[in-house]
Amino acid sequence: MSQNIYLSNYEFEDALEFYFSKINIEKSKECIKSEESIDRITAEPIYSEISSPFYNSSAMDGIALKNEITLGANEKNHKILEEGKDYIVVDTGDPIPKEYDCVIMVEDLIKLADNKVEIYKSAASFQNIRPLGEDIVENSLIIPSGHKIRPVDIGAMLAGGVNSVEVYKKPLVGIIPTGTELVEPGTTPLKIGDIIDFNSRTFAAQVFQYGGIARRYSIVKDDYEIIKTTIKKAVEECDIVLVNAGSSAGREDFTSKVIGELGEVYIHGVAIKPGKPVILGKIDNKPVIGIPGYPVSAYIIMEQFVRRIIEEFSGEKNYEYKIIKGVLSRRIMSSLKHLEFVRVKLGKVGEKLIVTPLNRGAGAIMSLVRADGILEVPQNIEGIESGTEVEVKLLKDENEINNTIVCIGSHDPILDIVADLIHVQNKEYYLSSAHVGSMGGIMALKNSETHIAPIHMLDMETGEYNKSYIKKYLKDKDIALIKCVKRIQGIMVPKGNPNKIASISDIWSKKLKFVNRQRGAGTRLLLDYNLKRLNINPREIEGYSREEYTHLGVAAAVANGDADCGLGIYSAAIMMGLEFIPVCNEEYDIAIPREFLEKPMIKEFIKVIKSHEFKEKLDYLGGYDYSEAGNIILL
Amino acid sequence: MSQNIYLSNYEFEDALEFYFSKINIEKSKECIKSEESIDRITAEPIYSEISSPFYNSSAMDGIALKNEITLGANEKNHKILEEGKDYIVVDTGDPIPKEYDCVIMVEDLIKLADNKVEIYKSAASFQNIRPLGEDIVENSLIIPSGHKIRPVDIGAMLAGGVNSVEVYKKPLVGIIPTGTELVEPGTTPLKIGDIIDFNSRTFAAQVFQYGGIARRYSIVKDDYEIIKTTIKKAVEECDIVLVNAGSSAGREDFTSKVIGELGEVYIHGVAIKPGKPVILGKIDNKPVIGIPGYPVSAYIIMEQFVRRIIEEFSGEKNYEYKIIKGVLSRRIMSSLKHLEFVRVKLGKVGEKLIVTPLNRGAGAIMSLVRADGILEVPQNIEGIESGTEVEVKLLKDENEINNTIVCIGSHDPILDIVADLIHVQNKEYYLSSAHVGSMGGIMALKNSETHIAPIHMLDMETGEYNKSYIKKYLKDKDIALIKCVKRIQGIMVPKGNPNKIASISDIWSKKLKFVNRQRGAGTRLLLDYNLKRLNINPREIEGYSREEYTHLGVAAAVANGDADCGLGIYSAAIMMGLEFIPVCNEEYDIAIPREFLEKPMIKEFIKVIKSHEFKEKLDYLGGYDYSEAGNIILL
Repeated sequence: MSQNIYLSNYEFEDALEFYFSKINIEKSKECIKSEESIDRITAEPIYSEISSPFYNSSAMDGIALKNEITLGANEKNHKILEEGKDYIVVDTGDPIPKEYDCVIMVEDLIKLADNKVEIYKSAASFQNIRPLGEDIVENSLIIPSGHKIRPVDIGAMLAGGVNSVEVYKKPLVGIIPTGTELVEPGTTPLKIGDIIDFNSRTFAAQVFQYGGIARRYSIVKDDYEIIKTTIKKAVEECDIVLVNAGSSAGREDFTSKVIGELGEVYIHGVAIKPGKPVILGKIDNKPVIGIPGYPVSAYIIMEQFVRRIIEEFSGEKNYEYKIIKGVLSRRIMSSLKHLEFVRVKLGKVGEKLIVTPLNRGAGAIMSLVRADGILEVPQNIEGIESGTEVEVKLLKDENEINNTIVCIGSHDPILDIVADLIHVQNKEYYLSSAHVGSMGGIMALKNSETHIAPIHMLDMETGEYNKSYIKKYLKDKDIALIKCVKRIQGIMVPKGNPNKIASISDIWSKKLKFVNRQRGAGTRLLLDYNLKRLNINPREIEGYSREEYTHLGVAAAVANGDADCGLGIYSAAIMMGLEFIPVCNEEYDIAIPREFLEKPMIKEFIKVIKSHEFKEKLDYLGGYDYSEAGNIILL
Repeated sequence: MSQNIYLSNYEFEDALEFYFSKINIEKSKECIKSEESIDRITAEPIYSEISSPFYNSSAMDGIALKNEITLGANEKNHKILEEGKDYIVVDTGDPIPKEYDCVIMVEDLIKLADNKVEIYKSAASFQNIRPLGEDIVENSLIIPSGHKIRPVDIGAMLAGGVNSVEVYKKPLVGIIPTGTELVEPGTTPLKIGDIIDFNSRTFAAQVFQYGGIARRYSIVKDDYEIIKTTIKKAVEECDIVLVNAGSSAGREDFTSKVIGELGEVYIHGVAIKPGKPVILGKIDNKPVIGIPGYPVSAYIIMEQFVRRIIEEFSGEKNYEYKIIKGVLSRRIMSSLKHLEFVRVKLGKVGEKLIVTPLNRGAGAIMSLVRADGILEVPQNIEGIESGTEVEVKLLKDENEINNTIVCIGSHDPILDIVADLIHVQNKEYYLSSAHVGSMGGIMALKNSETHIAPIHMLDMETGEYNKSYIKKYLKDKDIALIKCVKRIQGIMVPKGNPNKIASISDIWSKKLKFVNRQRGAGTRLLLDYNLKRLNINPREIEGYSREEYTHLGVAAAVANGDADCGLGIYSAAIMMGLEFIPVCNEEYDIAIPREFLEKPMIKEFIKVIKSHEFKEKLDYLGGYDYSEAGNIILL
């Protein structure tokens, strides 16, 4: 229960400068075959060793001859020439023997019998000859140093007789995963407490993209001596060593101590978030970096430190992120204590590119998978106001962003199906959905942050779905509803229904442990509606305050035995192997500003939810009625 | 001497559409390890197989316990708990046993002796617990189909228990070089008539970049049956087959006949330039393409046809060219008979991006190496006027273009040295030079197409260099001169000086074969100046009309015995192993608009020509006097 890390808080730029001054990287070179040099960086300027062509050749089909014997030929005074004696026949590309100095093309010859031709024009020296060195002259520059080799460069090198080329060596990057709880992917059975080592594989792929060569070491358990031996070995074998330290305090201190013992730790703690507890050190003149265990922290350290080191070795930036401008959809608060890298979703809704910050926790790798970009909030500011124009580093193709339907609102697994079908059926388009509940979707429409909002909101007075909420909250917008599905909501319980639940009132009467959805979720409204109808005080439901963000999240909690039951849709219960007690049918519809109905990508969306393929997948999931899917209701 | 190709002239778009409708590509899939899937395209949506975390774990260092035993604890009413009986100690990340449902963090505990703690707050269910599925819930979508896998996607897949992934197979592309004259790179000695097979290596690198896997077959000589056998074998083994047909008419017909015999030729001849004689066919339902032999034609066919086919197989575009806008510096004429792909140089001179067309011949691979972009001139227009805004497909990084010193004018090998040193000494900057002679440089300055123009122009009246030309041709510009080098011009002759040349007059009096420089070159002016002085009629010099564009080109012609002598600089003669008879010292200077002297990249240029490294390389070449290098003369 001890916690004793005293980390420094170096400003990011200072840390970079200080660390790079200490590690002082020297590029090393290697000689490789030119034909295998694609994408490598030249370490020297490359000069041709031979000319191309390396002999004079014919530029035409025709005859090669000495120009002097053509002198005097003209329209009035034709000359007759004899093959073998006066000329030879040549095709395009054929070498021109030394004794000849020009070519007359076949179109300018009058053919006679007996291997003779008649000419009616004189020829100039070197006429129709492709001279030696026309493409490349011996000893001339083909490509400069520091140049990334492209396919045409390979062609030019080989044509110029350059069969091997001096390039910067790709650094070998050793990756050491440490942690007694780590297990290899694919380990079965997984035991409670195991952590799958996915970080080291993510690092390896990053190293590859940055232009390095990754060498992963086997998982090292938390043992000071074994860690020390492994780091020593890796330093001997590699150019750069990364130690993935796990996220717990004790263990990070461990790595730092080993690096300090074998070499030097320059910095432990940089004023960035995520990624603060990074360890920047050196052993035997090689960079050794301790990388925090949380996947997002690790990603930022890889991008901000490791990438730069690899590029320094390999001679050039391997790729650049595009920076684009957008408008922040909601306020970001940030501390003066650090530079923060905020993951964002991007959406071209109307004219503006809308930038919406995502979950800022460092533990969720899915937040990186879902992110469209990274927004940097500088250390010296306390936050950025909503509506501000900001610059975002793109993690996806800009085209993809512009052709993505932004979908913010209630969650249903069918959204994943729609997203997949849209892209499969029309490669140009994408759908990206954020699950913030029906009310969140309504608010996103209000703020013009989304194209569409899937909602299922029961009016407690009328029993009608969706319309009254749109009228109430979006009165100054012209909103339409695209009918989507009726779906069965019900109580999810473990197989066999051990608590014999028959209705919502049983949750209260049997004092069962419940798992709820987040505030603003339509499913939560449904529960509240029923509790009110039954006159049950929500406080008397154990677990009412425990919030999950998706149907699957609720189903997983029930499946794991953390709760006795939860409210959700049929398909999620079935996916998790649960039993399902139907409560009601509800209308899950898509709210959309009327103007967007004309957008080609929205038309594609409607086409998809009307399609046979979509309905087939819904039948497979079960619990959906799609008879009205795609109908449009103007409000 | 027969020439009987009757090529069709399909419009490009029609040809694409027609051919793709005929070959009807079906993607095939393969299952690979997730950790090796970087940059591959998913063929299915990827759903998680387990939750991550797959058990409830502690989000804090503290104690895990049942929340019910904390009820009633408050500031006034502390509760004492006992380890083992009431709670267990947990660190961040530790699993929470089933019997516990909350964590109190260490900061909220009062430690007592005897494994007891005191609490002063009650705890809620699931407080400080990172629930199962917080990052990824079992059965939820990780990445959609048609998605290019990134490092974070690999991490998320492994975290979600997805250890293998269905991706589109990369097509195997067979490359068959044909031609009796072809030899492998590295063949020694090369014989007159040999052609180094560099095309097939360029293709292999292109296939790699497009996302395919290349399989090169050995060179096949021009023998109908052997070509047929090889194509048959390649079709059996590969998904796509490319036959590099050589450029001669007869041989192309050969490939076409073989494809026709084994399968079907749909198109032979498309209205594009370069690349017209492409053969688009199919054998056993696999695309088989005959690619012209000229390297630029081949490049265009690879880009316009083969690339699209590979992308169709592999599921997604592997990379996109950036399109930028610029202003055309000189008129391009083009025929209504074809869509033309014109290689261009780009330069940010002043505010505008200047687009300058390069050599349009299809035979020079160096024109592709030197090109910064490709400008497409549509089939339905006859040309583009100078000054028109045009769109250019970038072949280099935009940043590189913007940070490149454009240098148009007279050639000297030292320009390659400067280009290399600039980039080595300041990674940000580049120098790109085009060799059009001194007068071409003056004209480029006049048209604001260049930053700097290296010139060496002798005033025949005064014997002074450069200044009078600037005053005459650039009177409305404010031009400065950066002094560069004095260099020795002289007569280049073969080793041993077989014709005993002592001076320029000998070329005339001994009736020797000369090789000249192009019109506008300073070296040509120097010759003319001397001929005039000697009262020699240029027409009486044999080879006066044979033009080379560089000193090295002249030296190569002399070295090859195509000419007895030529005029040029000392360093070029020495590089080619020639002997050198000095004629005069001349001043090779850099003309520059005065305003550009303030540009950081020009300052870097001046720094380089003043540098020790530069002078060292000049000493190595020999024949240069750099005592004034870098001095600025305002005119």
